[in-house]
Amino acid sequence: MFFQKLKTPGIAHVSYVLGEKEAAIVVDPRRDVDAYLRLAHENSLQIQFILETHRQEDFVIGSLELARLTGAKIVTLDHPLFGHSDIRLQDGEELELSGLKLRALHTPGHTPESTCYAVYLDEAPTVAWGVFTGDTLFIGEAGRTDLTDPLKTSEHALQLFDSIRNKLLPLGDQTLVWPAHGSGSVCGGNIAERDESTLGFERTTNPAFELTRDEFVAAKLHERIPRPPYFTLMEKLNLEGGAALAKPWSSIPWLPPKKFASELQQGLVLDTRDPEAFAGGHVPESVSVWLKGLPVFGGWVATETTSVYLVLADAGDAESAILALARLGIDRVEAILAGGFDAWRDAGLPISQSRTIAPKELEASHSEFAILDVRDDVEFEDEGHIEGASHLYVGYLEEHLKKVASSLREKSSVAVVCSVGHRAGLATSILRRHGFARVANLLGGMTAWQHLKLPVSKGKAQSITTPDIEGERK
Amino acid sequence: MFFQKLKTPGIAHVSYVLGEKEAAIVVDPRRDVDAYLRLAHENSLQIQFILETHRQEDFVIGSLELARLTGAKIVTLDHPLFGHSDIRLQDGEELELSGLKLRALHTPGHTPESTCYAVYLDEAPTVAWGVFTGDTLFIGEAGRTDLTDPLKTSEHALQLFDSIRNKLLPLGDQTLVWPAHGSGSVCGGNIAERDESTLGFERTTNPAFELTRDEFVAAKLHERIPRPPYFTLMEKLNLEGGAALAKPWSSIPWLPPKKFASELQQGLVLDTRDPEAFAGGHVPESVSVWLKGLPVFGGWVATETTSVYLVLADAGDAESAILALARLGIDRVEAILAGGFDAWRDAGLPISQSRTIAPKELEASHSEFAILDVRDDVEFEDEGHIEGASHLYVGYLEEHLKKVASSLREKSSVAVVCSVGHRAGLATSILRRHGFARVANLLGGMTAWQHLKLPVSKGKAQSITTPDIEGERK
Amino acid sequence: MFFQKLKTPGIAHVSYVLGEKEAAIVVDPRRDVDAYLRLAHENSLQIQFILETHRQEDFVIGSLELARLTGAKIVTLDHPLFGHSDIRLQDGEELELSGLKLRALHTPGHTPESTCYAVYLDEAPTVAWGVFTGDTLFIGEAGRTDLTDPLKTSEHALQLFDSIRNKLLPLGDQTLVWPAHGSGSVCGGNIAERDESTLGFERTTNPAFELTRDEFVAAKLHERIPRPPYFTLMEKLNLEGGAALAKPWSSIPWLPPKKFASELQQGLVLDTRDPEAFAGGHVPESVSVWLKGLPVFGGWVATETTSVYLVLADAGDAESAILALARLGIDRVEAILAGGFDAWRDAGLPISQSRTIAPKELEASHSEFAILDVRDDVEFEDEGHIEGASHLYVGYLEEHLKKVASSLREKSSVAVVCSVGHRAGLATSILRRHGFARVANLLGGMTAWQHLKLPVSKGKAQSITTPDIEGERK
Amino acid sequence: MFFQKLKTPGIAHVSYVLGEKEAAIVVDPRRDVDAYLRLAHENSLQIQFILETHRQEDFVIGSLELARLTGAKIVTLDHPLFGHSDIRLQDGEELELSGLKLRALHTPGHTPESTCYAVYLDEAPTVAWGVFTGDTLFIGEAGRTDLTDPLKTSEHALQLFDSIRNKLLPLGDQTLVWPAHGSGSVCGGNIAERDESTLGFERTTNPAFELTRDEFVAAKLHERIPRPPYFTLMEKLNLEGGAALAKPWSSIPWLPPKKFASELQQGLVLDTRDPEAFAGGHVPESVSVWLKGLPVFGGWVATETTSVYLVLADAGDAESAILALARLGIDRVEAILAGGFDAWRDAGLPISQSRTIAPKELEASHSEFAILDVRDDVEFEDEGHIEGASHLYVGYLEEHLKKVASSLREKSSVAVVCSVGHRAGLATSILRRHGFARVANLLGGMTAWQHLKLPVSKGKAQSITTPDIEGERK
Repeated sequence: MFFQKLKTPGIAHVSYVLGEKEAAIVVDPRRDVDAYLRLAHENSLQIQFILETHRQEDFVIGSLELARLTGAKIVTLDHPLFGHSDIRLQDGEELELSGLKLRALHTPGHTPESTCYAVYLDEAPTVAWGVFTGDTLFIGEAGRTDLTDPLKTSEHALQLFDSIRNKLLPLGDQTLVWPAHGSGSVCGGNIAERDESTLGFERTTNPAFELTRDEFVAAKLHERIPRPPYFTLMEKLNLEGGAALAKPWSSIPWLPPKKFASELQQGLVLDTRDPEAFAGGHVPESVSVWLKGLPVFGGWVATETTSVYLVLADAGDAESAILALARLGIDRVEAILAGGFDAWRDAGLPISQSRTIAPKELEASHSEFAILDVRDDVEFEDEGHIEGASHLYVGYLEEHLKKVASSLREKSSVAVVCSVGHRAGLATSILRRHGFARVANLLGGMTAWQHLKLPVSKGKAQSITTPDIEGERK
Repeated sequence: MFFQKLKTPGIAHVSYVLGEKEAAIVVDPRRDVDAYLRLAHENSLQIQFILETHRQEDFVIGSLELARLTGAKIVTLDHPLFGHSDIRLQDGEELELSGLKLRALHTPGHTPESTCYAVYLDEAPTVAWGVFTGDTLFIGEAGRTDLTDPLKTSEHALQLFDSIRNKLLPLGDQTLVWPAHGSGSVCGGNIAERDESTLGFERTTNPAFELTRDEFVAAKLHERIPRPPYFTLMEKLNLEGGAALAKPWSSIPWLPPKKFASELQQGLVLDTRDPEAFAGGHVPESVSVWLKGLPVFGGWVATETTSVYLVLADAGDAESAILALARLGIDRVEAILAGGFDAWRDAGLPISQSRTIAPKELEASHSEFAILDVRDDVEFEDEGHIEGASHLYVGYLEEHLKKVASSLREKSSVAVVCSVGHRAGLATSILRRHGFARVANLLGGMTAWQHLKLPVSKGKAQSITTPDIEGERK
Repeated sequence: MFFQKLKTPGIAHVSYVLGEKEAAIVVDPRRDVDAYLRLAHENSLQIQFILETHRQEDFVIGSLELARLTGAKIVTLDHPLFGHSDIRLQDGEELELSGLKLRALHTPGHTPESTCYAVYLDEAPTVAWGVFTGDTLFIGEAGRTDLTDPLKTSEHALQLFDSIRNKLLPLGDQTLVWPAHGSGSVCGGNIAERDESTLGFERTTNPAFELTRDEFVAAKLHERIPRPPYFTLMEKLNLEGGAALAKPWSSIPWLPPKKFASELQQGLVLDTRDPEAFAGGHVPESVSVWLKGLPVFGGWVATETTSVYLVLADAGDAESAILALARLGIDRVEAILAGGFDAWRDAGLPISQSRTIAPKELEASHSEFAILDVRDDVEFEDEGHIEGASHLYVGYLEEHLKKVASSLREKSSVAVVCSVGHRAGLATSILRRHGFARVANLLGGMTAWQHLKLPVSKGKAQSITTPDIEGERK
Repeated sequence: MFFQKLKTPGIAHVSYVLGEKEAAIVVDPRRDVDAYLRLAHENSLQIQFILETHRQEDFVIGSLELARLTGAKIVTLDHPLFGHSDIRLQDGEELELSGLKLRALHTPGHTPESTCYAVYLDEAPTVAWGVFTGDTLFIGEAGRTDLTDPLKTSEHALQLFDSIRNKLLPLGDQTLVWPAHGSGSVCGGNIAERDESTLGFERTTNPAFELTRDEFVAAKLHERIPRPPYFTLMEKLNLEGGAALAKPWSSIPWLPPKKFASELQQGLVLDTRDPEAFAGGHVPESVSVWLKGLPVFGGWVATETTSVYLVLADAGDAESAILALARLGIDRVEAILAGGFDAWRDAGLPISQSRTIAPKELEASHSEFAILDVRDDVEFEDEGHIEGASHLYVGYLEEHLKKVASSLREKSSVAVVCSVGHRAGLATSILRRHGFARVANLLGGMTAWQHLKLPVSKGKAQSITTPDIEGERK
């Protein structure tokens, strides 16, 4: 028996390798499949099946590529939204692997094709050992239900509620829960930080079980998690089994500052250093996306057609940065700045700086600053915000710049706020790109603000662009 | 929330780091504590408590050293067999860590002081999330009950049965099970290979729950797991919180062949290469303990007073070999052979070879060979053995050489058998050290034998030394 | 200024990266070019030129691939044996790199197109700092002159003598010497172990300078270094700039023992474990090539059309084994045995063993053994051999089996001898494949034999197959 | 033959391992000796001798500790400034190692006891292969002569001139040169970037050979390299063979922000992030020493009695930061900030920011800024500086704050300038600690300034504190 979780950093995705004797399955592999191959080799396992729980939206899957390299069969529910599988199971049908059985459970709600797989061991053929729950049931949360059609959020919430109650709950309290995402994923609202749970523990703590049907639907309608723009591309690629990596990352050129400068005119510069370093000095017009945020926010600022130019804190970050983008289908990384920002700086090339501000300093000079909170709706409303703050999620900033401008009114400066300063750094860089001259990133964000017991408001604010965005999202 | 299992290779020991916010506990740390420190540093955790489930027998613990380095408090049950703790809990008493609660459950049986710790999260203060079960409950097995007094095996079995039923079972099916050992440990008979389970799944599959009280006692009496000689030292050291590592492993000298040869006269040469390589050529009188077997069998052939000389397959194996021995309290590694066996060989120093034999070859020349099976009692009796084989566990070989000799009678050669060839390699080297000239290691052991469907017997055999050993063990 | 040697293990090849300011050159890159890219990235260097000293014979070069990935220009002498270069220098012509100058020196002898590159720094434009000598001048040796046409060995020796005297010597004593190969290469006879030297130090110690013209020619005629069969393919590929790696090594399947067994019928099993382990047990018919010998001897037993099946000591050896073969153009590695020989053994599949023998044991039972020495001519003749030994270089064994058989005459057993036991292990496995039943590998070889001061003969022996081989080689 | 250079990062120190057969020497080992032990183990070498070229001033040596761990003998010249050696050679005396000979050459000048060791190989007993030159001869430079007594700089320069001419030059052009420091060391003024050279190449390019006796003395008098304060402690420790590491680095506590904040009152906070990140936000009163500058500048701001608190860019930097300080004898690292600056920031603890300024921005607002150049004298005078800049080496800043203040006169802001911004970042943090409110770090420093072709002056400026510092240094 071999069992290992593989987490994909930044997107809180979890894939699984389950081996029994010489055979193994991989559940929900990501685009870069080397890690699965290595695990199999080191543990003398043959990957025989690749199971998909649903058509992932937040990363490109690696099913086809892994199948090509190993000869494994791709296994899914028999549903039109799985466009490419070799073995298509009916609801309740079982797959066998060296005595171990995996039973497919159709659990629509998050998406129509969503499938869970209950695992039964030889020694207890009727008692589920564990269940791969995909995005149907997370630890402490259920999947979001607004993705396929925001207008049908409540209908899908009802489906999901029933799937969880009728398909998962009967597996019993003892069942281990193995979801496709953990805390921090954009695929669920409030996933717990812990990675280990059971159906029985979820039954007593997870809102999906604690709420009534109506309460559950209301909660889902209240969720309003941002929908990253790259989801559409992911759905398209994953319908057909995903895509192999476009090229080895080592083939991307590293350009010296002047050459980098001359080429980047046609593209977007992403700076993956920390917000403080970015504030201290950066390539003009560059966008600040800290390294650990790149796996998500890279997809908010670039698409598969964007020419990306990277500024890294360290040459050793190249592989993870490029993979983070590749998992979002962003393959056109044109160049990396050789020598990093230091080389740029020392070459006398133009430099921009932006401002940071500490909480007490902002509190003291409150009157000079318009405050723009770029967290998501729930964070803003439920966790509290600075009195008088405008609100617009960082991802929607670029399309609503005029409204942002008008909302700031007569204030000469803007303080951008998020939870600790990363998204505010991104927002700061976007505003600066678009001509906002005096923008400061609140260091430590609301986390520091609240540690200092500075005053906060709760509840719905006058969101800058509420009408349009709601329209888009409905 | 941070949760990580750390497995100690070779002894199937599992320790745990559980963090909540900035604080963390370590459960059952091993002697070399660097891994805990690193995890804490990388995850910004302060180790505040060190919990012990019992006085470990199969390795030296690192509680005192970890406490010294971190300022953490050592937490145990209030019991005389915990000689050194800072916080001594009563049965049922709770410890708090950033909102998370750990309740001590006194669960005697494996040993008198054995304690489990149920973990309760803030969000569900009455429903156990998981339980650290020490050696009380393993996955698929319960702890052995013959250790503290073999004559009281059945009495302890009854205690253990009650502890499991009355203290653990009430925690509920949803409870995650985190034992101190996994498959392969000498602390339990038949631990399952999987590392993930719940009380509910154990309730339906683990013999500890499936058997009646009487059946459970009978099963425990039947177990007869070997008791390694180093257990006594471990118990003594661990009563006082274990011991820090004696010295950095890099300070052990690497000697060239001739110098190594001249010094090793006073010591024991351990060769950690594979049995095939050992058979092909080795330092005369050396003992063959393959690298992955060293963490257990090192302690059967050496003690804290043995001067050990190491022959390694690869210079890179030094650290793990030395740590494996150190975890058993064997600190007197005097030297490593620089350049490994190759250097010895090329220096023209004396070389011994031993024989290997393939199953079909043994089958064909059956009449020439006395067969000696060195697996443990249960393997020999229940899993089948070669017809006519004598039986003596590898660990008892050295004390019973005369009986071995007499049992082999007129046969000119001995074929030594274990499950695949590692322990048989060790046994072969011991026999050769003691003058048995014609000894062959059955390659692939009973595993290969049975794959080939060659004939096997089951049931109790005329064990070579039954009376004495039984006497010792009773 | 950046300067780094990159050694290619096993073939003693040395390539160089020389950087000045932001620009760099690579001299004589090997097929797998990732290491050059990484060095460039980490040191903020742009690879602008790829220099070739000659059409390498002992590995596939990576010039074209590196040029493709970096945009660098390939630089060679303007000679027909360089089929693919972008910049074709005349003898004496210079290339500039950020102020540093590289002057091409046509130095025929080893091969007709051989070129050295003298390096001049800005601060001393007329005093050579160092010289890339390719296979023209090694440390302690000069390149072999029998490769392009064995019948013209003496003519080429004269050329080489003149090239060294007339082109290199004038550069001056202070010049650092950077050859394309170090000790252990098949491209030169007796290369020194040290990697650092100067023209001045070579002038007083290297036979190329110490000998007269006639003595030098005589020495070259005496050399008789084996010519590996893969040289022909290398020459063909390298004429056009080499070849990119065929596929990522992680895409090669790892098969469980039975599947491996069923497929390998059409191929060749290479076992890269140490000779002692191979002797202790191995896959029948497999060929023993220890891991560090694979980069050369892999090419003696396999070709670009051989289907290779690998048995490794450790899963971690896969990458280096596959690269070692790929560098010889052997791309058809069909599978790796999952779990290594242990898995094969435990599956009860057929096992062969072979014999090892220690020097004293051989000395004692001299009369039973025919002795076959498989070292090269010079080792056999000049370094001494066992009295009465037959002689045939390991690489020629397979084509001359009948003569081997006849030479062994009435002796029932063969002892195979090399310097320490690696090549003898290979020879043993070849003989066993071809039906020689009783073959033993002399452990420690002549090295141990001579440490023990056992008797040796010197001078030319009755080589088994002298006439044929000489014919082939002339 | 085994030969390897080991560079110590940040201080440009080079130590050497030279092995012949089974024996090896180490030349000038640093305090942390693990790297030497590993090399020896991996290459089957016994370290037999430890050679010292002089009593190092810029790091703690590891001779005694390495001798303790290996049994090697410490070898030096027989001179009172070597207080601890086992073998004390006379000038010209030889040491033998497996046939290789090392001849001691007394070469006073840099220091009175300075010794070079010429290496002779068996094959050329009268022609030097290479020479370990310590701080007597660097590549492109000679050692500084002001250390032991600044008033005798010229006298020592004469000695050094003679040592180089009379002791080294006769070894011949072919001799490889292996100095104890490379480019960037504080032990020599203008060491070349290349690491490879020969006496012959130095003879034609190194000022030590090109200048006349008088010119050489004049050049030495002109050098004025700063003398770090830690040199005194190094000399004291190294007189007796150096010191073992005080404790394993993993034993240093990592404290969460609030605990870190409460403890650091008694100590000095060193922030090893890049200057841009430091500028964007930092712990108030902390000192900015970028990670790669720590091995030198750590010793300008802390001493062996300073309680140091570290803020790191990455948890993975801990080992190198602590070792860098330990090599300077700074062992009292009391704590590391767990979670780095991010954790501090998010905890709402006080934050300071400082300003950065780009060259063009400074040029444009020239009139507002007093400019303070903190490079060393030679950089300032010979490489050019901004018109009107005051000058004081960064290391002397703290003792001359009043003069700095007065020199800035009426200007409201200070722009601090170095070559690229690292030392200016350090200077900025020191000024800020001492109450200078408006200080900006010129990003890219003079490197960027000159790339932009902005105006520079050359020659001696009105140095702020010339009289005192000169006094100290004379």
